[in-house]
Amino acid sequence: MQLPDAVTACALIIGNEILSGRTPDTNLNHLAVTLGGWGIQLREARVIPDIEAEIVTAVNEARRRFNYVFTTGGIGPTHDDITAECIAKAFGVPLKTHPEIAALIRQRPAPADVMESRMLMARVPEGAVLVDNATGGPPGFRVDNVIVMAGIPAVMRAMLATLEGKLDRGPVIQSRTVMAYLGESQIAAGLGKIQARYPDVDLGSYPFFRDNRYGASLVMRGPDAARLEQMLAEVCAVIVEAGETPHVEDAD
Amino acid sequence: MQLPDAVTACALIIGNEILSGRTPDTNLNHLAVTLGGWGIQLREARVIPDIEAEIVTAVNEARRRFNYVFTTGGIGPTHDDITAECIAKAFGVPLKTHPEIAALIRQRPAPADVMESRMLMARVPEGAVLVDNATGGPPGFRVDNVIVMAGIPAVMRAMLATLEGKLDRGPVIQSRTVMAYLGESQIAAGLGKIQARYPDVDLGSYPFFRDNRYGASLVMRGPDAARLEQMLAEVCAVIVEAGETPHVEDAD
Repeated sequence: MQLPDAVTACALIIGNEILSGRTPDTNLNHLAVTLGGWGIQLREARVIPDIEAEIVTAVNEARRRFNYVFTTGGIGPTHDDITAECIAKAFGVPLKTHPEIAALIRQRPAPADVMESRMLMARVPEGAVLVDNATGGPPGFRVDNVIVMAGIPAVMRAMLATLEGKLDRGPVIQSRTVMAYLGESQIAAGLGKIQARYPDVDLGSYPFFRDNRYGASLVMRGPDAARLEQMLAEVCAVIVEAGETPHVEDAD
Repeated sequence: MQLPDAVTACALIIGNEILSGRTPDTNLNHLAVTLGGWGIQLREARVIPDIEAEIVTAVNEARRRFNYVFTTGGIGPTHDDITAECIAKAFGVPLKTHPEIAALIRQRPAPADVMESRMLMARVPEGAVLVDNATGGPPGFRVDNVIVMAGIPAVMRAMLATLEGKLDRGPVIQSRTVMAYLGESQIAAGLGKIQARYPDVDLGSYPFFRDNRYGASLVMRGPDAARLEQMLAEVCAVIVEAGETPHVEDAD
């Protein structure tokens, strides 16, 4: 399903800790669900290490291919927090101390060396617009179509929430799901024929093994609720024809 | 940390259901941990949609940059299962029915149309080597350095397990972790100096908010246990110097 008026996004999850397996990522799913609700389709996600050249390349590729790029991770005060610097390099602009963040940081007193480290978090690429951080720490920022957020899930979520209503939006993709206990091969031919007649709806078949039985969830996704209902009826008919019972999930 | 003898990998998670947010991915973390234990470093992961051009491009980019590429998803019998076809296109070879898979599929009788759909799962790129599927379904396969597995987590895990001992391996990366309740800025300067002296060890600082307190986990990763111990002692000293208590986790 390629919609002409789609608004698309790419997620860049920056962090060695995800790639080493130490920390399971949870930001991707939250981003996918939240952006989907705003009419922004997540079309790709990349998990990349804390290596400057890789971050710069990934940002530059993604910002040209998608309407928005959301990064998570790497905006703290330690040596391994290199995201702001990489975004500045990707855009070819200098990194500058932002007076608003600097003022925020100075509100909490600290010894000179600690303050110096904290002030690293005040540096953003020239021209960046701040993204509020309701959890009290330093903000994220936005340069052109690239939105830079923290990696800590609670902080990322707080930053993302402040963007509601501030981004371009396309059609919101709705979905319907029907489940049946059967092997996908029993209905594969029928599903393929239905998909061919509905280029505006994605029909996904997701097999599972549960309660000692094989089954499949058939998921329809598209912008037009009426078309989803039509397709749902056809998919149910294919399941019944295979001698099985369709279990339709409630609509979103 | 760039090791000259590292064996690297990229994960390609193929599936609209991850990008739509319907299904949270769990395969990435399992791959990262398992490969890490085998001396293979996961260096990048990409989540991409069920779109031929994107899969072919991603596979071709990844197989040139990394020692191994592991794909998950898209090897069933339905219209949205296009991974085998895409791998064949990426390598410029035809898709052929593999006699061993075909024989396996024929063991379970089925009506002609169901059997025809099942037989789609017997098609692998010419020259592919099979990857056993202990769960009973059709196998995965390997072409050159690209290993193609199912998306269902239990099946992916079963397939991956059969590869133990059959892949090239580099040094196994070990890790040590120390936690302290402090703000990263209190120790950022000290950590940066330590990292500069240990180019063979990655020192990551991961802040968290737990039990109403801020803290950070300092994670050291490298191939040499003795070097990790040395660095750990230095990091603990920086924490103590900041007036806080280091909590060292047990070694792996």
